[in-house]
Amino acid sequence: MRGIFISIEGIEGTGKSTQATLLAKYLKEKGYGVTQTAEPGGTRISFRIRELLLSPESTDMEPMTELLLYNAARVQHIKEIVMPALLRGEVVITDRFSDSTMAYQGYGRGIGLDLIDSLDSVATGRLRPHLTILLDIDVETGLMRNRKLQKHDRLELEDISFHEKVRKGFLGMAAREQERIRLVDCSGDIEAVRRNIVGIVDAFFDALQK
Amino acid sequence: MRGIFISIEGIEGTGKSTQATLLAKYLKEKGYGVTQTAEPGGTRISFRIRELLLSPESTDMEPMTELLLYNAARVQHIKEIVMPALLRGEVVITDRFSDSTMAYQGYGRGIGLDLIDSLDSVATGRLRPHLTILLDIDVETGLMRNRKLQKHDRLELEDISFHEKVRKGFLGMAAREQERIRLVDCSGDIEAVRRNIVGIVDAFFDALQK
Repeated sequence: MRGIFISIEGIEGTGKSTQATLLAKYLKEKGYGVTQTAEPGGTRISFRIRELLLSPESTDMEPMTELLLYNAARVQHIKEIVMPALLRGEVVITDRFSDSTMAYQGYGRGIGLDLIDSLDSVATGRLRPHLTILLDIDVETGLMRNRKLQKHDRLELEDISFHEKVRKGFLGMAAREQERIRLVDCSGDIEAVRRNIVGIVDAFFDALQK
Repeated sequence: MRGIFISIEGIEGTGKSTQATLLAKYLKEKGYGVTQTAEPGGTRISFRIRELLLSPESTDMEPMTELLLYNAARVQHIKEIVMPALLRGEVVITDRFSDSTMAYQGYGRGIGLDLIDSLDSVATGRLRPHLTILLDIDVETGLMRNRKLQKHDRLELEDISFHEKVRKGFLGMAAREQERIRLVDCSGDIEAVRRNIVGIVDAFFDALQK
């Protein structure tokens, strides 16, 4: 595998997709082959799973059903999009990956972390991002931003305390895996956050070439 | 849990749903409360997963994606349909359950049986049918019957050798779990098969009352 796998993570309203797009643009301009993608989704089958997961009608979905569906979508995403691009030697930038499952289904919904980890191992074959950018913001600001964008999916409708648990989960994971997960405060404007991310990614690529 | 959980299993074209309906009718006439259901499906969410699983468009679906989706649908089916009916003391008759996953994804697709078993444990919490009726027929006759019924889902489109492996898987499971899984030859007419099943179920209920 010759490519580089970067995930952008964070709670709702952190601007993950905007920053993924800006990072993809930056790396393309530097001459890298880049595949930008997002979970849940990225393939036809994964997108149909996404529709089911995020539908506001799915309020009676069991946490375990949700966990299995996210993993199912991920298997297909890895097989059809992520691995082929990595094998072509590209930089793959994904908006969400396994860390989101740990944060939302584990820390948020309270499913056992060991169970989530074993399922992840089955679904990903232990494919891990080389670098993860964790965008962080306080929950209320994040949700407020989403509301302005009229995003009303099922996750956005959860109460504040759920998103607080998810955020705490993400921050704990970043503290334990400081080498892979880099924390970026995203309370500032888009350009400030972009510069911060670009700095981290440049340093990461520089270190790789040494 | 006061109810009785019966699954009807078998390859394509064994007449599972017809026999499930006839058995439900028989037990209702004997005065039992009966819930008749089928997998994948039974709930709104499970039915949407079913559509995705059985769509002839899903030919590029990874075996692992398929396995996770069947389990996701099962979690929801158990929670919304099977367990509530069992707790009400009813007889639940399901057209397919965990044994189908072992037969199709394990023996058919070649996913490790231990992995399927651990996922099943997570999804079902080790809920097992008290009695399983395995309808058996040779693969070509079964597929021919389905073709007459104009059934053309994704499973039906697999080649003969896939269905042979699934049948062999089912038969092996029946040999190992003779107490729970009762083999019923279904090459005869519907009424002959029905009488055979009713005989097994009557004996099972009689034994329970002793």
